[in-house]
Amino acid sequence: MDARADKSESTTRDERFARGLDVMSQVDGGLREQVLGSLADISPELGHQVVAWGFGEIYSRPELAPRDRQLVTLGMLTALGGCEPQLEVHINFSLNAGLTPQEIVEALLHSAGYCGFPRALNATMVAKKVFAERGLLPVEPGA
Amino acid sequence: MDARADKSESTTRDERFARGLDVMSQVDGGLREQVLGSLADISPELGHQVVAWGFGEIYSRPELAPRDRQLVTLGMLTALGGCEPQLEVHINFSLNAGLTPQEIVEALLHSAGYCGFPRALNATMVAKKVFAERGLLPVEPGA
Amino acid sequence: MDARADKSESTTRDERFARGLDVMSQVDGGLREQVLGSLADISPELGHQVVAWGFGEIYSRPELAPRDRQLVTLGMLTALGGCEPQLEVHINFSLNAGLTPQEIVEALLHSAGYCGFPRALNATMVAKKVFAERGLLPVEPGA
Amino acid sequence: MDARADKSESTTRDERFARGLDVMSQVDGGLREQVLGSLADISPELGHQVVAWGFGEIYSRPELAPRDRQLVTLGMLTALGGCEPQLEVHINFSLNAGLTPQEIVEALLHSAGYCGFPRALNATMVAKKVFAERGLLPVEPGA
Amino acid sequence: MDARADKSESTTRDERFARGLDVMSQVDGGLREQVLGSLADISPELGHQVVAWGFGEIYSRPELAPRDRQLVTLGMLTALGGCEPQLEVHINFSLNAGLTPQEIVEALLHSAGYCGFPRALNATMVAKKVFAERGLLPVEPGA
Amino acid sequence: MDARADKSESTTRDERFARGLDVMSQVDGGLREQVLGSLADISPELGHQVVAWGFGEIYSRPELAPRDRQLVTLGMLTALGGCEPQLEVHINFSLNAGLTPQEIVEALLHSAGYCGFPRALNATMVAKKVFAERGLLPVEPGA
Repeated sequence: MDARADKSESTTRDERFARGLDVMSQVDGGLREQVLGSLADISPELGHQVVAWGFGEIYSRPELAPRDRQLVTLGMLTALGGCEPQLEVHINFSLNAGLTPQEIVEALLHSAGYCGFPRALNATMVAKKVFAERGLLPVEPGA
Repeated sequence: MDARADKSESTTRDERFARGLDVMSQVDGGLREQVLGSLADISPELGHQVVAWGFGEIYSRPELAPRDRQLVTLGMLTALGGCEPQLEVHINFSLNAGLTPQEIVEALLHSAGYCGFPRALNATMVAKKVFAERGLLPVEPGA
Repeated sequence: MDARADKSESTTRDERFARGLDVMSQVDGGLREQVLGSLADISPELGHQVVAWGFGEIYSRPELAPRDRQLVTLGMLTALGGCEPQLEVHINFSLNAGLTPQEIVEALLHSAGYCGFPRALNATMVAKKVFAERGLLPVEPGA
Repeated sequence: MDARADKSESTTRDERFARGLDVMSQVDGGLREQVLGSLADISPELGHQVVAWGFGEIYSRPELAPRDRQLVTLGMLTALGGCEPQLEVHINFSLNAGLTPQEIVEALLHSAGYCGFPRALNATMVAKKVFAERGLLPVEPGA
Repeated sequence: MDARADKSESTTRDERFARGLDVMSQVDGGLREQVLGSLADISPELGHQVVAWGFGEIYSRPELAPRDRQLVTLGMLTALGGCEPQLEVHINFSLNAGLTPQEIVEALLHSAGYCGFPRALNATMVAKKVFAERGLLPVEPGA
Repeated sequence: MDARADKSESTTRDERFARGLDVMSQVDGGLREQVLGSLADISPELGHQVVAWGFGEIYSRPELAPRDRQLVTLGMLTALGGCEPQLEVHINFSLNAGLTPQEIVEALLHSAGYCGFPRALNATMVAKKVFAERGLLPVEPGA
């Protein structure tokens, strides 16, 4: 199944879920089990909607490249505040989608002017945790 | 003393505090000690105002049922973000006020469309913690 | 078509859109034209998703009554701030779903303790506009 | 009546309201009529609570000078966003409480580092409106 | 002067301001006059800092392309809410920096899942205004 | 070097950084090492900007006294939510800048009316942690 092709009007709930799982596998191997697993006994419908709608219906649209979606998402999660768990997931996504550590760090520096230093600092500390886990520290400043 | 009856113009600060304590006891046995205790050595006036104003003056008004107040409150705390401690208290309140686990879970699913998935997911994880402590997992999906 | 019955796994994108339109018609006669019309030349997909996902997939679920969804929604929109256009739509929905003007006003008074007076005041001014348009002023205080 | 003296436990709802009106008169001549008037036919209880609780119970406490309360308030209203009407009221209060136009402008410049430029710019435009109405433009930069 | 080259430790306040003006001219011809003009009589220092720090020190860094900065910025301004004036400026920037109307609309659709529909709708209405002024409506959906 | 004197147009990046370090030393002995150290391997430029811009360019301006800047900052960090790490730093600053524990506690009580009780409670719990570390508990209520 081509995760990015099908937007026909007859796509079913099942098919959107399958497409969302496909997209999630491409951006992060363990994510779908983590999301669906943690919600299984409390809100499986929320898990379904994250997968089928968030990934199967929105994220999979070809109108914006995954790398570009991640730039938008980093901006939103930093601005919202209190989204450290989601930021951790999406900084991993961002690396998987082709953003470099330097670009991620720069996006968070850039956020200081729009959201202020506290949001920028908190997001950068999440990036530091992710980069440490993936052996990407220290981040070399741009030439 | 009838916690819901007295709104006469001559209610004193003492009487409002007593009414607030009454209301708090009805929604959560241990809450008043927890709130007042944690604030006793730093801001007893904030503790007083949570009890006397928040509960004695606002929450106790009969114009909206406690169950309905909790639906509004779940929406606000989810939307605000960063209110996990208060959400934990109010998910307990919500159960005590008669909302079912299914209704609470559905309210948080509903929030995804207005606040986005990160807020909905964070609030749902708080509900999972509360439900686990009260032996309410797994939550059975609606029929 | 029963707007609240169908959650089978084979529901298509078309069917969800139709169900969403049905639900919207029940809560507000002119809303679907307004949403779809204003987005037609800029983001018809966003219009589709508001209808098919927001209403067809989430709002239509029977796990929470429409009146109760509106209480949650009033709380969220008040807390988020800057959502006056959506609050106007949803205060109309709330009346249509069976909330009384007194209950709506009380929900917004209740919000003061969680979001502060500025959010409560701004939301109350939106309610005043909607109530004026529908001939519901003055709102009689509770007995 | 001394607006700042009475915190005895027997203060009634009536007395707190009267004290709040006193405090409001001191910070802004027309404000009490404006707040109470605009809420009279929709939520007189919200008007009562702004006066009796916000001003009569909190603002009137001597533990922090009115000028200092205004500095905290300018910070909060700027950070919250979407509170332009309240910011307009409180920039007037701030002038009345003894803050100079230079100090107000500097507080809003200071906010850029914590909330970002958009919030700082929006708040500064509100200050510009208030200062223009009071003939305080241009604001002379510090020496 | 090359707006993107100079980060030497001896750059002066004057030079950063000049660099910021250069960068602003590249993204939007009339912006610098608009920002500096509107702040001239109230907070010229805020105007200076938007130019010299926001553009001269941060935006001009080569570590992230202007187009990519705009994706992050669209995400932040949408998430923050209440930033319609800044969103209008930055949707213009985004077009000037090479984002297509389709990409901008898609970024705002994408935001629905993270910030909710109200923020996505409000931002899309700002885009509609900007696109209308620039003769870019209707936006053709992706193939 | 006088940290508060130099705003000449020829101040260099190096000099602003040095001035920022000076200001930080005055408000908190260990802070500069903490900020610069935690960012050294991930985003030294963010560390530079906190010091050189946040402190060297903004905080050091004489137009508002450090004590007054702290009142604005306490308001902003409380209102933003999710800024507990920064609030901890700034409650320490506030004490160092001359605010008394009573004034800090009162500023946070005051915030309840503008941001709601959850933000006020979370900020007060941070203050309790800082005051405990500095041996300032219990805080004596005002006379």
